[in-house]
Amino acid sequence: MPVNILFAARADQWRIYQAPLTKALLEQGVDATLSTDLAPEDVDYIIYAPDSAVQDFTPYTRAKAVLNLWAGVENIVGNPTLRIPLARMVDHGLTQGMVEWVTGHVLRHHLGMDRHILGQDGEWRADAPPLASDRRVTVLGLGALGEACARMLVRLGFPVTGWSRRPKDIPGVSCLSGDAGLQAALKAADILVLLLPLTDETENLLNAETLALLPQGAVIVNPGRGPLIDDDALLVALDRGHVAHATLDVFRVEPLPAEHPFWAHPNVTVTPHIASETRSETAAQVIAENVRRGETGEPFLHLVDRENGY
Amino acid sequence: MPVNILFAARADQWRIYQAPLTKALLEQGVDATLSTDLAPEDVDYIIYAPDSAVQDFTPYTRAKAVLNLWAGVENIVGNPTLRIPLARMVDHGLTQGMVEWVTGHVLRHHLGMDRHILGQDGEWRADAPPLASDRRVTVLGLGALGEACARMLVRLGFPVTGWSRRPKDIPGVSCLSGDAGLQAALKAADILVLLLPLTDETENLLNAETLALLPQGAVIVNPGRGPLIDDDALLVALDRGHVAHATLDVFRVEPLPAEHPFWAHPNVTVTPHIASETRSETAAQVIAENVRRGETGEPFLHLVDRENGY
Repeated sequence: MPVNILFAARADQWRIYQAPLTKALLEQGVDATLSTDLAPEDVDYIIYAPDSAVQDFTPYTRAKAVLNLWAGVENIVGNPTLRIPLARMVDHGLTQGMVEWVTGHVLRHHLGMDRHILGQDGEWRADAPPLASDRRVTVLGLGALGEACARMLVRLGFPVTGWSRRPKDIPGVSCLSGDAGLQAALKAADILVLLLPLTDETENLLNAETLALLPQGAVIVNPGRGPLIDDDALLVALDRGHVAHATLDVFRVEPLPAEHPFWAHPNVTVTPHIASETRSETAAQVIAENVRRGETGEPFLHLVDRENGY
Repeated sequence: MPVNILFAARADQWRIYQAPLTKALLEQGVDATLSTDLAPEDVDYIIYAPDSAVQDFTPYTRAKAVLNLWAGVENIVGNPTLRIPLARMVDHGLTQGMVEWVTGHVLRHHLGMDRHILGQDGEWRADAPPLASDRRVTVLGLGALGEACARMLVRLGFPVTGWSRRPKDIPGVSCLSGDAGLQAALKAADILVLLLPLTDETENLLNAETLALLPQGAVIVNPGRGPLIDDDALLVALDRGHVAHATLDVFRVEPLPAEHPFWAHPNVTVTPHIASETRSETAAQVIAENVRRGETGEPFLHLVDRENGY
């Protein structure tokens, strides 16, 4: 009897995912009925995007797992009707894209590229940047994305400090944790990269108090989640020059409204949530493997720790 | 008896190099007299910058080697009065800086950063770039600098083709050589990086004919030498849109004159020969080691092949 899989995400996602999921399930040897429209009581697995119409999981009485299409789970993890396992997306393509975006923007700020991209005025200002070994980078958040970015920045020669709530150990990275660790990590951040999950504890983690710990002239790069930053506190720090520049890919409200002061601020670069995206082919493989694992009794991959919220 | 070392470079270089060289020679156990002013017939080694006042080497009758402070040797290799060994600068700091600059600008073009840096207009255009695995990069020149850059680009996930006059073998890089290899390398260059030495054979290597081999919309990054490119042919290719962008760090005349069309061209980024520079501390170590080698009869490092011109 086929496994019934509900695809609970927006219609544009169905157009992108239907073919790769069908292929990946076949490759995993799963006999599946994949549909956007199944009677809730017949559903075995829910492939899910948090912006889906499905917000009450109560009717899905026999479902074995919710398989999230997104890396971020903050909009589902607190749902009280969700009582079955929740797996996040850990997609090789998404990690790779994030490494490219973070490495690119860290190098952009390190090399002072904007001066040349914006200032083609015919004046020859030959001041070479320092080497990466003289530019300290801190990565807040050492999950799959943060760790991969930290490792690449180490390979490029940057002294990298990483911080995570729970202690980690990554070769070449000064790994810190806890509150005291956070202070030290911020003080060592010529360039600060935010890749924390959004939880009650990380919301507004970057506020007036923590921004003040950054070295004068620090640069912030946020491809993580918008609410990690207190926007108003960041704007004050930018206006004072304490923070030299912020490159922001994520925001409290997306698309970022045209009237938001970030757009007009000369020392802010807004990018439209493109730092990385789940790639349908590789993501479909992750989903299909988890369905097969559910059917053969193997543990699910990438399960979310509901208590910690990520 | 101390070894007499003439420092033949501009005064500003002497201010930068005197202390690091003194330190490095001491560390190598070389008893040296280091000066900008020695009688030519007393000089054992010449530390040299091609823009030095010394252009006639005939009076330096007992000198054992010319130790170049620059990676580029095109302005000295053809000097008929130079009949002693010539060593180029192969400086770890210079290589590292070049890797940072090349990786940064390749990622900049790959990620389409300029759209965001130049276009903060409040409009949310959420089109994520492809992954590096879908962007082909070609590196022309696989010397110390080209090889190091090619290896880092491979680590970032780019499919990298390398080309050099003589066959090379670098793990992960499709290494090509010869005329047919050059054509194939150019055809595979979504992004083209020029790191060739300047010789009679490489001057104007990128001309109307070879530019036409690049894929439509290719990007050129030149941190090598200005005369590798036929400027007029590049401007035509840019105007036609066949070449989408050129980021140029080196020019036939430097500083690039303010009236040169490169400055004003919307699809050219001029950077003022900052891609990399020799770092005095690490460079002094390379020079001091070669002096010690000369004194103990070991072969010099980084000798220039005078016949091939690099």
